[in-house]
Amino acid sequence: MGSAQTTQTRVGIVGGGPAGLMLSHLLHLAGIDSVVVDNRSREQIEETPRAGILEHDSVRLLVETGVSDRVQRDGDEHEGITLAFDGGAHRIDFKHLVDASVQLYPQTDVFIDLAAARERDGGDVRYGVTDVTVFDVTSNRPGIGFRDAEGRAQEVRCDYLVGADGAHSMTRHTFPSELRRHYFKEYPFAWFGILCEAPPSAPELIYNHSERGFALISQRTPTLQRMYFQCDPHEDVAAWPEDRIWTELQARVGANGFTLKEGRITDKSVLPFRSFVQEPMHYGNLLLAGDAAHTVPPTGAKGLNLALTDVVVLAEILERALAGDPTAIEEYTPRALERVWKAQYFSFWMTSMLHQLPNADSFDARRQIGELTAVTSSVAGQTYLAECYTGWPDR
Amino acid sequence: MGSAQTTQTRVGIVGGGPAGLMLSHLLHLAGIDSVVVDNRSREQIEETPRAGILEHDSVRLLVETGVSDRVQRDGDEHEGITLAFDGGAHRIDFKHLVDASVQLYPQTDVFIDLAAARERDGGDVRYGVTDVTVFDVTSNRPGIGFRDAEGRAQEVRCDYLVGADGAHSMTRHTFPSELRRHYFKEYPFAWFGILCEAPPSAPELIYNHSERGFALISQRTPTLQRMYFQCDPHEDVAAWPEDRIWTELQARVGANGFTLKEGRITDKSVLPFRSFVQEPMHYGNLLLAGDAAHTVPPTGAKGLNLALTDVVVLAEILERALAGDPTAIEEYTPRALERVWKAQYFSFWMTSMLHQLPNADSFDARRQIGELTAVTSSVAGQTYLAECYTGWPDR
Repeated sequence: MGSAQTTQTRVGIVGGGPAGLMLSHLLHLAGIDSVVVDNRSREQIEETPRAGILEHDSVRLLVETGVSDRVQRDGDEHEGITLAFDGGAHRIDFKHLVDASVQLYPQTDVFIDLAAARERDGGDVRYGVTDVTVFDVTSNRPGIGFRDAEGRAQEVRCDYLVGADGAHSMTRHTFPSELRRHYFKEYPFAWFGILCEAPPSAPELIYNHSERGFALISQRTPTLQRMYFQCDPHEDVAAWPEDRIWTELQARVGANGFTLKEGRITDKSVLPFRSFVQEPMHYGNLLLAGDAAHTVPPTGAKGLNLALTDVVVLAEILERALAGDPTAIEEYTPRALERVWKAQYFSFWMTSMLHQLPNADSFDARRQIGELTAVTSSVAGQTYLAECYTGWPDR
Repeated sequence: MGSAQTTQTRVGIVGGGPAGLMLSHLLHLAGIDSVVVDNRSREQIEETPRAGILEHDSVRLLVETGVSDRVQRDGDEHEGITLAFDGGAHRIDFKHLVDASVQLYPQTDVFIDLAAARERDGGDVRYGVTDVTVFDVTSNRPGIGFRDAEGRAQEVRCDYLVGADGAHSMTRHTFPSELRRHYFKEYPFAWFGILCEAPPSAPELIYNHSERGFALISQRTPTLQRMYFQCDPHEDVAAWPEDRIWTELQARVGANGFTLKEGRITDKSVLPFRSFVQEPMHYGNLLLAGDAAHTVPPTGAKGLNLALTDVVVLAEILERALAGDPTAIEEYTPRALERVWKAQYFSFWMTSMLHQLPNADSFDARRQIGELTAVTSSVAGQTYLAECYTGWPDR
């Protein structure tokens, strides 16, 4: 890297998704410079459709830090969800129970808003880079090496490095193997997701437990909807023509009294179910945030929210560390992990309560109904689930 | 049975444990005669030590129906429990959260009180009988055949038969096999239970999650205590001398900051963990109640309470059926089962949240801590657990 062009900054961030950009934005508000690099182009990220349900406080974060008021204008506020099982439907009224709601607002739009905000504020974000490496992570001047979009060798030198480079993170693999612990769970099923051109089948999300397996009714826009159903992780989308998909979906939601509005299916994909955590979340002056450190299955809608919570904690800690507090960095892993493990548990709970578990016996199947009955028939049970879903109030 | 002496009554009850005797007592209060038979002697049941934690409404039932005020005088009111994990202790304050408490009062004493009440009221209870059979269960005059304690052939003819003959129920096996469905789960662990001569180590129950496995600190009297720890289902009590037991127990509770007061161990036993439900709970004019129809593992302290709830529902239904309502009997299975499955779920939940699961990976171990943290750090979570533990308020 001797001939590389070098940029000096306070915080170097690998990954320009929502976690990396939000961190850069929060640091900017605290008067701290950062450089963000991402090996994808801005257009590439903007054109990748990613679903998203934002917790109450995630919406507030975007609005109050001046990222976007579009999340409130274009997003769709959901004041509850419905759990449907055993032939009936039970609404969990978030607004009434915990005075909170969630916002249906795609992750892609969160990115678009954050990228625009960083551009507006003169943020240094390098998209479309290649050959990214991190080095000297235990020194007091670590760095990021890469080639810019034009192929020129570049180097960023900083006080702290942040790995916000997603589920396939390169940065987390730079932790010494004797230091890092991986907690991993692969589920014996996946979600078959579709996008279809149809009006909404319901105003809010409906989580369907059925003997044929789980199905989720969700929404995207007034004319485009997103549906999911539990499938084998090795399911072949080609084996599922439109008719077969609608028959299966209608059967699963029909068992609980719902009917879907059908339309042309424009996208089909299989989403694997994984739970993952890497501990610790920092090594030397390298700190991980978001999917780089943890993955949750989509049932609890926690992935994006957890990434945003990480960077809120991280921004505060980096601010203190850069102001000279030598112990601040040590606080990051325990503070972030408490919420991470609560979210892992909640995602696992929703998943195991609502899906047909391949090794389940008939006892387990009835016990699931017992659990769904107990939770939905109790105000305390509903409140507890609403708290978990809308985001724990201790944030 | 041609030469048998025949007794005519309205309800014939097989099983003179708490479920059978409480049903007989409730029917008596409604002016309905019954006969109870049990193949154990009264002394034998009175001398079998059985632990017991009574839900709020179970205590009320015993007191308000005039069975016993001893439950309030001699029982020990517990206004909460403690969940201990990850080095700390978190009390669930039932009184504050749900304005309810539970009563530590052994099942053996519940039996003693009920047997005394039935004797006082002139109830017909035949202990120490042999060769019990039920017959003509689908006719309108079913019967119980048996030999009395003196060996004489006896027959009870009745309108309705009730099987309250416990976990090894004979009556449930008389259901046609094509009709009955069994839901069964055997757990890969058990509880090692001890009785010891020592003062209480804590005023309330303390449920300990630890890396070495679950341990429960509980109480019996001011001078006799009951402790349990998770063990292999095939554990040999002979392999556990006093020293080894105390070392193991102290290590498990010590991990969360507790110390046990030790004393001479007077009883050691291994309690298997099983979940079981037979559906339906009635066939013809034979109805099952309590352990005859369902077994729960002891973690949720639900067994005795569920038996008492069954017979409250059953007494009301039998009263209506005997007054000529032909549809009443059909209501029993669905009404009883809703609570049974909630209790099965709660017992499974407490068990799986607190025990080391033999096939668990490191992810599951951390997820358990995430769950315990989520539940104990949320008022709604604590309230939900308190509701389940003290008995659902819908009873």
